[in-house]
Amino acid sequence: MAAQKSAQKPPGRTDHPAPNATRRSEKSRRAIYDAALALVADVGYPKTTIEGIAARAGVGKQTIYRWWSSKAEVLMEAFLDLGEQAAQAAGQEPYVIPDTGDLAADLKAVLRATIDQMTDPRFAAPARALAAEGLVNEPLSREYVAKLMEPSFQLYVDRLRAAQEAGEVRGDIDPRIALELFVSPLAQRWLQHTGPISYEYTDTLVDYALHGLAPRAQ
Amino acid sequence: MAAQKSAQKPPGRTDHPAPNATRRSEKSRRAIYDAALALVADVGYPKTTIEGIAARAGVGKQTIYRWWSSKAEVLMEAFLDLGEQAAQAAGQEPYVIPDTGDLAADLKAVLRATIDQMTDPRFAAPARALAAEGLVNEPLSREYVAKLMEPSFQLYVDRLRAAQEAGEVRGDIDPRIALELFVSPLAQRWLQHTGPISYEYTDTLVDYALHGLAPRAQ
Repeated sequence: MAAQKSAQKPPGRTDHPAPNATRRSEKSRRAIYDAALALVADVGYPKTTIEGIAARAGVGKQTIYRWWSSKAEVLMEAFLDLGEQAAQAAGQEPYVIPDTGDLAADLKAVLRATIDQMTDPRFAAPARALAAEGLVNEPLSREYVAKLMEPSFQLYVDRLRAAQEAGEVRGDIDPRIALELFVSPLAQRWLQHTGPISYEYTDTLVDYALHGLAPRAQ
Repeated sequence: MAAQKSAQKPPGRTDHPAPNATRRSEKSRRAIYDAALALVADVGYPKTTIEGIAARAGVGKQTIYRWWSSKAEVLMEAFLDLGEQAAQAAGQEPYVIPDTGDLAADLKAVLRATIDQMTDPRFAAPARALAAEGLVNEPLSREYVAKLMEPSFQLYVDRLRAAQEAGEVRGDIDPRIALELFVSPLAQRWLQHTGPISYEYTDTLVDYALHGLAPRAQ
């Protein structure tokens, strides 16, 4: 979750209008993102509308339709932007899992950053509202996964592949499944309140996943 | 999920009225469970009411209030009953994880049974509706966890403790965290559509969790 990327640039960055227009666009874009995230947190996904987002952002409905075709799209990009901002605020490169040569340390650092994001209400409330809708709205869920979750999972895949090359992970491991051993438990505790969340907890998940539950020969 | 238990017996079994009354009670109880599960799957948790359950079950509202105090309670017990029925239909003892002395085989068997339950629409639709509500309704979520999920997790804890005594799992492992390495990934794929679900997948999770991702000395 802390690590997310998108193939698409947010609007207002891909084109190059005059400086004043860019500033106006940038201001509107941010107001729309903030409004969309706040609204879905307040009233839930089904009651969030483009009209509602426009009203809350203080922009015309057409401003939104110029850049996005659906409320789902606005929300996805608002989340991407939020992840990007959080990473920048933490002085990190977004969309990258560090490779210091110590896989356990790198995974622990990313999961700690994910916890920081999960406990930030600006992120948590809209993320929870969207996830709740996804549970009963399969098309939305599949879009959320394709645009937000899977790109984030792929960063773990890349890091685990590098670890395989470095001999830190067995070559016969499927990285796409392996990452779930530490990512999914945290996601479930956060989403379903199945247990407390702490840095110690995610550190433990990483250690268990890397070294396994069964005894190892000395 | 396949393995669930409750401290409370379902109504109609704890008391011992005359045989005819018992049969009538049993019939009403089952009609109420079926109606509750069908209704929450159809209209979602927020729109499910005791009145609606009573109408669909063809019983009086008072029949429901005699046994349960809330719709949440009816749904929890309907789920428990469903899990019990599924286990019996599969010829298994409900509320127990087998201990054949082979931890990997036992965990794989239980996770395969869980998949069977997840892909049964009678279970899946209401479970998903209730989980969706839990994401944005923390008190309900905490009740769902306390009454349904945590008792099921404790069965894994018991099995992992036995494995620790048998030397199949390291003594310094916390079983309550360890179980999440294979339970949570399956739950996330099922709830959030983050990937396909198969017996091969859950078998792999068990192998990765037990043996770890890092290379082992030969």
